[in-house]
Amino acid sequence: MNERASGDPRVGILFGSESDREVMSEAGKVLERFGVAHEMQAISAHRTPDAVRDYARQARDRGIRVLICGAGMAAHLAGAVAANTTLPVLGVPLPGGTLDGLDALLSTVQMPAGVPVATLAVGKAGARNAAVLALQILALGDEAVARRVDELKEAMARGERL
Amino acid sequence: MNERASGDPRVGILFGSESDREVMSEAGKVLERFGVAHEMQAISAHRTPDAVRDYARQARDRGIRVLICGAGMAAHLAGAVAANTTLPVLGVPLPGGTLDGLDALLSTVQMPAGVPVATLAVGKAGARNAAVLALQILALGDEAVARRVDELKEAMARGERL
Amino acid sequence: MNERASGDPRVGILFGSESDREVMSEAGKVLERFGVAHEMQAISAHRTPDAVRDYARQARDRGIRVLICGAGMAAHLAGAVAANTTLPVLGVPLPGGTLDGLDALLSTVQMPAGVPVATLAVGKAGARNAAVLALQILALGDEAVARRVDELKEAMARGERL
Amino acid sequence: MNERASGDPRVGILFGSESDREVMSEAGKVLERFGVAHEMQAISAHRTPDAVRDYARQARDRGIRVLICGAGMAAHLAGAVAANTTLPVLGVPLPGGTLDGLDALLSTVQMPAGVPVATLAVGKAGARNAAVLALQILALGDEAVARRVDELKEAMARGERL
Amino acid sequence: MNERASGDPRVGILFGSESDREVMSEAGKVLERFGVAHEMQAISAHRTPDAVRDYARQARDRGIRVLICGAGMAAHLAGAVAANTTLPVLGVPLPGGTLDGLDALLSTVQMPAGVPVATLAVGKAGARNAAVLALQILALGDEAVARRVDELKEAMARGERL
Amino acid sequence: MNERASGDPRVGILFGSESDREVMSEAGKVLERFGVAHEMQAISAHRTPDAVRDYARQARDRGIRVLICGAGMAAHLAGAVAANTTLPVLGVPLPGGTLDGLDALLSTVQMPAGVPVATLAVGKAGARNAAVLALQILALGDEAVARRVDELKEAMARGERL
Amino acid sequence: MNERASGDPRVGILFGSESDREVMSEAGKVLERFGVAHEMQAISAHRTPDAVRDYARQARDRGIRVLICGAGMAAHLAGAVAANTTLPVLGVPLPGGTLDGLDALLSTVQMPAGVPVATLAVGKAGARNAAVLALQILALGDEAVARRVDELKEAMARGERL
Amino acid sequence: MNERASGDPRVGILFGSESDREVMSEAGKVLERFGVAHEMQAISAHRTPDAVRDYARQARDRGIRVLICGAGMAAHLAGAVAANTTLPVLGVPLPGGTLDGLDALLSTVQMPAGVPVATLAVGKAGARNAAVLALQILALGDEAVARRVDELKEAMARGERL
Repeated sequence: MNERASGDPRVGILFGSESDREVMSEAGKVLERFGVAHEMQAISAHRTPDAVRDYARQARDRGIRVLICGAGMAAHLAGAVAANTTLPVLGVPLPGGTLDGLDALLSTVQMPAGVPVATLAVGKAGARNAAVLALQILALGDEAVARRVDELKEAMARGERL
Repeated sequence: MNERASGDPRVGILFGSESDREVMSEAGKVLERFGVAHEMQAISAHRTPDAVRDYARQARDRGIRVLICGAGMAAHLAGAVAANTTLPVLGVPLPGGTLDGLDALLSTVQMPAGVPVATLAVGKAGARNAAVLALQILALGDEAVARRVDELKEAMARGERL
Repeated sequence: MNERASGDPRVGILFGSESDREVMSEAGKVLERFGVAHEMQAISAHRTPDAVRDYARQARDRGIRVLICGAGMAAHLAGAVAANTTLPVLGVPLPGGTLDGLDALLSTVQMPAGVPVATLAVGKAGARNAAVLALQILALGDEAVARRVDELKEAMARGERL
Repeated sequence: MNERASGDPRVGILFGSESDREVMSEAGKVLERFGVAHEMQAISAHRTPDAVRDYARQARDRGIRVLICGAGMAAHLAGAVAANTTLPVLGVPLPGGTLDGLDALLSTVQMPAGVPVATLAVGKAGARNAAVLALQILALGDEAVARRVDELKEAMARGERL
Repeated sequence: MNERASGDPRVGILFGSESDREVMSEAGKVLERFGVAHEMQAISAHRTPDAVRDYARQARDRGIRVLICGAGMAAHLAGAVAANTTLPVLGVPLPGGTLDGLDALLSTVQMPAGVPVATLAVGKAGARNAAVLALQILALGDEAVARRVDELKEAMARGERL
Repeated sequence: MNERASGDPRVGILFGSESDREVMSEAGKVLERFGVAHEMQAISAHRTPDAVRDYARQARDRGIRVLICGAGMAAHLAGAVAANTTLPVLGVPLPGGTLDGLDALLSTVQMPAGVPVATLAVGKAGARNAAVLALQILALGDEAVARRVDELKEAMARGERL
Repeated sequence: MNERASGDPRVGILFGSESDREVMSEAGKVLERFGVAHEMQAISAHRTPDAVRDYARQARDRGIRVLICGAGMAAHLAGAVAANTTLPVLGVPLPGGTLDGLDALLSTVQMPAGVPVATLAVGKAGARNAAVLALQILALGDEAVARRVDELKEAMARGERL
Repeated sequence: MNERASGDPRVGILFGSESDREVMSEAGKVLERFGVAHEMQAISAHRTPDAVRDYARQARDRGIRVLICGAGMAAHLAGAVAANTTLPVLGVPLPGGTLDGLDALLSTVQMPAGVPVATLAVGKAGARNAAVLALQILALGDEAVARRVDELKEAMARGERL
């Protein structure tokens, strides 16, 4: 199942602070392993709001199909991105706040009508599953990805882990 | 933006109990309004586990592209469906448990590696946004849906609501 | 202590949805009673992100000195405003989410370093105290407001309520 | 009170991941000490749903009388087993989720009408008491077990610990 | 499945206050419907501790096989009973405390090693499932009860509810 | 303020498990320092219920005036003691449960009408303040203790700590 | 047990706002019924801090032996009183805040070393038990009160309620 | 942006215990870096209530313009200060309580009408942002501070951190 991802990135992975890179790179590793090119970028809804807006508005034209956003504390990043694109936005709440991730989870998932964020579990587990969800979404229009996702399902049934 | 959905359903909306139908029909109304055919069914991970398994395994071949699952309390439905398909599964936690939906949210979102559930907010707000997320996913491979999703974005920028 | 507020607004009161207007008007009533002109506007960080940005960036030049932002659920409004201004931003978390305001409180208060939001209590009590805090801030540079704030303190010591 | 358990297993101990084995083996040790044969198996409601179904459906015919299921995070294992058997199912929530076990506890205990899971405390304490509860259940039809359970009660009254 | 329960009670249903009787009678109705005789009694771990002790110590000799205890707030009843018997004790946390049942749930389920309480969901849902669990336990030694429990399983698979 | 406590114990300090002795000895140290004799004993509401009952019923006649009870998890000890005496019972919730002491706090404080437990903070801080509260209670009828409690107040006003 | 309380008040009941009077009068009713004179007063730690200080400092000399303080939200009243007296201070957390009384409970109970507040349950139940605790404290030095408290214990054992 | 703060302190930083000094000095460092003189003092609402009252009442006349108060547990300090001044009071909840800072957050933020505390995030992050908020408030009447606050905004937009 390990083949080298190449070509233009189809998934953008964003995170609010450089200190979040390690956790969110778990998503990148899964995409890499399934042969889907991606890009990663630290970007802050509060410190660099214009950068967030520009990235989100240009993502579709740059070939991005799914966005994965990781943030903790107030955790506004996924929402700020979703406000500026109609691409599917997957949110990964990160620990570190007063409720150790539950706060970020609720900030991420409770979006107003019309601006959804598809939310995954807190932290690394969520980052990995965000990548799997991105693969499942891409699989709807990409036979090669679909085949690899099915192979993962079969491997898990044999007792293997992601 | 209102056109009659027709043809085979592309989205399946499942819920754990007939008493959940009203809340989950909010998702159906949004899909209908955006011209995407869907089907709705009450089905229980605990009372009718075989029905859940069969539905999930046959969904892709029946033309379903996205699954929306609403459940409260232990809220295992979305997870039981995701265990049996590689289609994107969107989970809508429903209120009614001891933590009034937070429990269902955590049961829905905290899936093991390899079996993601894209989780939305609790209750009607989540049901509506699950439909919008389904539209955003379908839009990646359907120009007509993509155009309508963009129109929603523009309408919201003018102050309209979903 | 009741005198008619007139002149250009010195406090801007923002809220994420028209349904929040009633709660946030409690802040307006206090300002009015203390003779400080204000303006109120429904504006959404997610549905109308450009309007939020423009409002926040132009507020200082328009004579606004303090911003009061009320929002519920993901509650990103105060943070989105603070990202685009250096004026003091006071946040009023609103109930309605899964944790009935605690979620909005944590979304509002847990801002990243350099972009503070001064957070008040959830709901009407918070809206009223946001106005009092705005008065205390304005009082630092306005003798008339300072005198009225002191009179409130003395009135409370005599057993009166705000 | 220590005698070698032999014969066909009367208690099945299941857990969602190999990493849960150590905690759940606390239940096995108690059963062993009271002379009740058991078996242990890692099995996942989400990665290997068919294995869970088959195990649960065949357990009674294989002589199993009580099932003990440990799982964390979404913690669906006990519920998935209970959906497929009428044997008493005892659930042990495991820590590791966002609420550090409270989430698993609520996922385990909040079952729909007709499909109970007898829930114990989170983690090792719960695993040990699940075994004691299994012994109390078996004691209703087994004089030898009943005598040993009574001896435990008397030993505790003298100040001994389980 | 409805036959008249007769003979000596095999299940004792206890609750901490007369105001809990209505909720706990849900358990009694299920037992009645499945033909298992039971008895109900209000009894308080704090106001009438001797009555609790005496009831628990004499229950086995009076033919009781399973005890169901419902209590709210500090919710010590199930634990106080379990301290004085080796019969299986099923605990039903009741709402009304500061955490609306979560407090009672944690008071009920977190028992020390050697003194388990099999805990069900909060309130009526828990009371009903306590009865089903009692039936599953009795079914291990009673063919007639076992047959009825299996019939319930089949009925649920056909879409019926408890 | 340090004088040797002597004579019959006027305060009884109880705790549910030997592992709680270290925390609860903080209460003992404060009493010792203020010259009030006390006794300490591990005793379990669930493993040794008769010992708890006997201790509580005989305490007054043995000269005990205040009881301090520390327990974690289900935390029934203070309540079980209060059920069997009319002496003031002070409860110290101990950490270790799923909510890390909040569970024990709610189990301790939420007593039914007529059977109060005066509850202090979780852990060592609570143990120390339970002792101070016991001193304040004894001071109502003991001039020497009253004088020492006043001296503590004055020492704190000068910046000293307990 | 109902005799007319007369003479100088021995218990002071304070509350932060007139709207709390009804709940706190539950404490007064219990004291009245047991023949212990008391006084009640609305007084605010934040609006009238000097009144709180003066009341607390003069209470002992005025013959008060126990203070009962009820407050919600930030719930600082009991702590502000305890800071200014060495009499036993009993705290009754009141509902109304974001966590519906749990917040007030934690504000009340978590006092620094040397300044304890004996905390009771939230709301009316806590107010009633604060009165019973005050009676138990007074009973240590008052035979008549001690006898009535013992009679309450016996009445409860016969099934009566407070 | 680093210039030596000199002159009379314009910001007072208070904290409930010497052990809080390190966390709260984060606020002092930020003020220092932006050239605003401040003073720091340990002072306890419960152990030294008169010192708190006197400090708060004299602060304005001593030239203080903004007060920053950090406290944990019951966290009454900010409220006790706000009760005695009309200067803006910024509250920094500190971790260490049963809810690890959430308790202090709710104690700090939920002030009664007329006595606001502008609340920041828990711990060091909150302390730093309290200083930034103080700068934003001072900037309304001080061109030099305003310029430095604007420079911080621009620096953050270039990717720098506070």
